[in-house]
Parts: sequence; structure tokens; C-alpha cells
Amino acid sequence: MRNVTIKLLAQELGLSTATISKALCDSHEISEPTKRKVLELAHELNYVPNAYASSLRGQKSKTIAVLIPEVADSFFSLALNGIEEVAMEKGYHTLIYMTHEKLEREQAILKALSGGRVDGAIMSVTIETNNFQHICDFNRQRPVVFFDRVCNEIDTAKITTNDFECGYLATQHLIEAGCRKIALLAVSNSLSIISERSLGFEKAVADFNLNEDDCPIVYCNDDSIHNYEVIRQLMDQDDRPDGIVATVEKLTLDIYLVCKQLNINIPQNLKVICFSNQASAIILNPSLTTITQPAFEMGKAAAKSLLRALKNNELKLADESAVIPSTLTVRDSTLVF
Amino acid sequence: MRNVTIKLLAQELGLSTATISKALCDSHEISEPTKRKVLELAHELNYVPNAYASSLRGQKSKTIAVLIPEVADSFFSLALNGIEEVAMEKGYHTLIYMTHEKLEREQAILKALSGGRVDGAIMSVTIETNNFQHICDFNRQRPVVFFDRVCNEIDTAKITTNDFECGYLATQHLIEAGCRKIALLAVSNSLSIISERSLGFEKAVADFNLNEDDCPIVYCNDDSIHNYEVIRQLMDQDDRPDGIVATVEKLTLDIYLVCKQLNINIPQNLKVICFSNQASAIILNPSLTTITQPAFEMGKAAAKSLLRALKNNELKLADESAVIPSTLTVRDSTLVF
Repeated sequence: MRNVTIKLLAQELGLSTATISKALCDSHEISEPTKRKVLELAHELNYVPNAYASSLRGQKSKTIAVLIPEVADSFFSLALNGIEEVAMEKGYHTLIYMTHEKLEREQAILKALSGGRVDGAIMSVTIETNNFQHICDFNRQRPVVFFDRVCNEIDTAKITTNDFECGYLATQHLIEAGCRKIALLAVSNSLSIISERSLGFEKAVADFNLNEDDCPIVYCNDDSIHNYEVIRQLMDQDDRPDGIVATVEKLTLDIYLVCKQLNINIPQNLKVICFSNQASAIILNPSLTTITQPAFEMGKAAAKSLLRALKNNELKLADESAVIPSTLTVRDSTLVF
Repeated sequence: MRNVTIKLLAQELGLSTATISKALCDSHEISEPTKRKVLELAHELNYVPNAYASSLRGQKSKTIAVLIPEVADSFFSLALNGIEEVAMEKGYHTLIYMTHEKLEREQAILKALSGGRVDGAIMSVTIETNNFQHICDFNRQRPVVFFDRVCNEIDTAKITTNDFECGYLATQHLIEAGCRKIALLAVSNSLSIISERSLGFEKAVADFNLNEDDCPIVYCNDDSIHNYEVIRQLMDQDDRPDGIVATVEKLTLDIYLVCKQLNINIPQNLKVICFSNQASAIILNPSLTTITQPAFEMGKAAAKSLLRALKNNELKLADESAVIPSTLTVRDSTLVF
């Protein structure tokens, strides 16, 4: 249970702790033979530098934070893998924080992190995030890169996908499959991605001359029980939609369950398309038509931008912004008979 | 872009940094009016203690590490939520690390963490973990608690579920549904949970007098393409199984895809039961019979044990071990005609 410290190395070698410390940092003040002796013993005793002490000296923690709403969502788990791949390659630790869609938590996490625990942050904001002071405050001290759910108010790198086009494309796909009464299920009216998707939806509704009143935007939230009820109310009426665009993956389960309960056949009575990265889309009953986002690539791009900024103080992060397009995958949930 | 430090507070108030520091720690050496003055200014200037400096002084980072294979698995994402809930409540940060099922990564992470970044760790080992030196090394310095995938060689708290019984129960369920040739899909021969589930499977096969040769244990791994091929070979023969027990969630997709490709009807020609926490089990085609593990509760129990140990050095962690039972949920993939 012995902790191998610089002091212990100094005692073992009969040198001062300052000498050991300098030798470990490869200082020119220390002779090569001494350095070799110190490094050999450090290796032999499995000496590990104290992370806090090193960070305090170097002012760099070699750690980045990732703030995401949750990990139980294929988009975020894939994006996380992309971030980690890049961070690991460059020798960075990744601290993963889940905000669970709570603004209060996002604020508390950023406040705690501004104490120097991380060199920068990659984030996707919560559905509640409608003020940005906490992000501005953090961003004054350390760089922030957004991916997917961004704050347009903050001037930094934003890695997004073509949400507006995909909102349009998803709606157009349903219209071409014969739908005339299409509902868009949203989860927030402040989230950038959702408003972009909604605008694309509204433009398609207008371009194809659908009746606006038949094409509502219906708001869900983060609570599955609530969402089930909202969708049930929507579908349990004579004048119900014949098409649904779901803007987030987790709504799939509730839509399918409501249809099962109400004996609404997908795709015969209702066609469904969902923004989703879930691998199981293909084995659902029926298999699910999706807009698939480049989650892994978005995570990688976000991490690359942040690490570039950490290496180069002069880098203008806003110039690093990128839009990586999503793809439509047609499956049975939008089948035409 | 001003960093609010103790030095700055000292300058503003005309006090020494030692006084400020003691006042912030609520020291009895400092008068109440001075304390109030310091705290008010600290609050006003939004002073945040430097995490590294505080940790260095207090020798506690108030941070725990969680090492899990991946987050794209419902069991682990739910367990993580349980861990986080407890940690947050007690004011701890949670550092989440994914090992991606690589022993080498598990070793590197624990080595890096032994530098003092965390006070303790909660972990579920990789499918490659067949030697434990790195965990022993870490555990000599800081407490480790295992959940789900444990090392029996290390004397500490282990939060598990009744894997042996569930292996038996899953197999018995298939036998009672008429299966006679049952394959168990495993992912490792070193993982504790998999060997427990396998033993339960073998006991059920023996108890119900099935022909052992008709009931193989088939090894998959972490690579979905490989697993698809293994399952395809298993199913693409005249003498193929009429039942499958899948020991991990991610095999579901490959089993369903192979059956689709080979025109094998589930449950008519093949009955499938899977150890899985995926919410979408109910909307798969067909809906999936599962052994559902108490993931959230296991995460909570693991975190509670670790935090108890961090508070109380005398605590014998091994006494904290617990077995929380799983449940069988019967759905259409094991339907009898």
C-alpha cells in the first residue's frame, strides 16, 4: 500500500526532491546519468505523477469535458465514441457528464468545471437551455465547442448536421408516400436542431400545398409517460394524422406502443419517420424509416476542433464550424401499398 | 477573462492570502466579520476554488471513476444513471471511462488514475480481462467496487445479479416452450457473468435430459460482423438449434438479422430469449422475451458501497457485496403454438 512519491525516489537515490522533479521533467540542469538513474527507479517502482500536482504546475489538466443530455441515446453514444477516439489518440482524458436535460445541472457542471478541472468542453445543450450566461462564463476561461444542439448566441465552433434540409426531406418523403395530415413531434421550442427541423417541416408543408391546420407541431418533453399520453391524445381522434415525423429517437417507442394499443397499423394507417441512429431500427415491427445523423463523425469533428484550439491559442474557433449531412434510409414504416 | 483567485481576493480586501484561504475554509482562526466579508466578495466575483489545488491540499478529489465496456448498451447506461444519482446526491463528480472491451485500455486507464485523479473506482471488467494485476495495483491505493462483471480474485464489494439462476431459468423457459436443441451464445470464457450463465444453462440441459451435443455453447465476441457470421453458420445447417439463449443484449440484432436473411421464423422455427435491458424489446418483430437485470439498482448499490468506503476507512468492502435478482419477461419470441 506504498505510495511511490518524488520524496521516496529522492530517499532511495540519496538526491534532493528538486533534483528528482527536474530529472523527471527532463530538465537541462540535470546530467544524463542522473536522469537515467531516476527514470529507471521511477519505472521500476511504477511511479505515477500525481495528476493534480502536475496540472497545477503545468496549468493543463489534459482533460476535456463532454456535456451531453444522456448516454441512452444512440446519437449521443456514437458521438461520444467519436470524441473519445480523437481524445485518446492525442493523450487526453475525457470526462463525460450527463445533464439529463436539466438546465440547472448544466449550470452546476460548468460552474464546477471552471475551477480548472478541464482544459475545455464539448457540449450539446439541454432541452431546457434558454439562457446562456453559464456557458459564456465558462467560455471566457476555456474553449467550448458545440455539437448537434448548439447556442447560436456564442461565437465558437459548431458541428451540426443539415437539420433544416432533413426536416424538409422527411416531410417530403411522407407526402410522396401519400400522407396529407402530418404531425411533427418536437421536444423543445428553444433547441436549435428542433427549430431547424420544424422550419424544414413547415416549408415542405407549404411547398406541397398541404393544409397547415392539418399539420401541427406537437410538443413532447423528456418524460416518457407524458410523451405517451401526448401521442395517445393525438392519435385517439377521428381526424388523426396519417403521417408522423419524430424529431428524436426516443419517441419511437411511444409512437409504436400507442399504435399497438389503439390498433393503428403502421404503415397502413400511419406512416412514421424518425430522426434516429438506433441500430435496431431495422428489426422493429415494422422496420423504421430514419433520418440517420453522422453521429460518430460529428463527435470526431468536435473533438478535433477543440484539441486544435487547445494547441493553438490563436485559432479562431468559429472558423472550425462544419455541417455534416445526414441520410434518409427508407424502410417499412413508410411503405406505400 | 479575469481569473478570480485567492490572491485577487486578498488584494481587493487588503488581507493576506492565508487569511482568505482560512476564511474560505471556515477556520476558527478567522473572525466572523472577516469571514463574512471574504465570502461576500468571493460570491460577488464568482470565485470558484481551483479543483486541483483543493484536491492537493485535501488529498481528496471528490471524484470517482466508472469503468465500463461501453455506453451503447442499455444495461450499462441504466447502471450509469444509478451510479450518477447516488454520486450527485453526495456531491461527487463521476468520471466515466469506456474500455471498449480492451484489456489494454482498462490497464492504461487504471494506471493513469492511480496518479490521484479519483478517490475510488466502480468497474465492470472487459471481456478480455483475464489477469488482474492492474486492478490489484490500483486497489492497493484506492477502493474498487465491482458491479455485474466482477473479479472473484479481488476481495472487495461485488454487486451482481443471480446469473446462474437466470441462465437456468432462461433455458428452462425454452425447454418448457418445446425446444430440444438449444444454443447458448456467450461472449467470453473468462467473464464471471458469462460463466455463471453458462453453468446455469448446462445444469438445465442436464436436469431436463436434453442431449448435451445438441446444446452447444457458441462463442461470439465484441465485433458485430464476426458475430453475424458465427450466428449465420450456426443457423445455416439442417441440424440447427430450435432455441437460443443470448447472454448479451447486442446479439439480438445479429440473431434477428440472420433469421430474416435465412427465412427462419421467430418464434415458429426458433425461439429466442436474451439477457437485455433494451426498452425497445417490446416493439421488435417479434417482441423479445428477456431476462431483465436490475441495472439501475445495481449501479446505485455499487456507488453507495464505494462512497461508504470513502467515508469510513475501516469499512470492510467485501461485506458490502449484494446479489440483486433479475426478472423473466415473456414476450412473442418464445411463443408456443
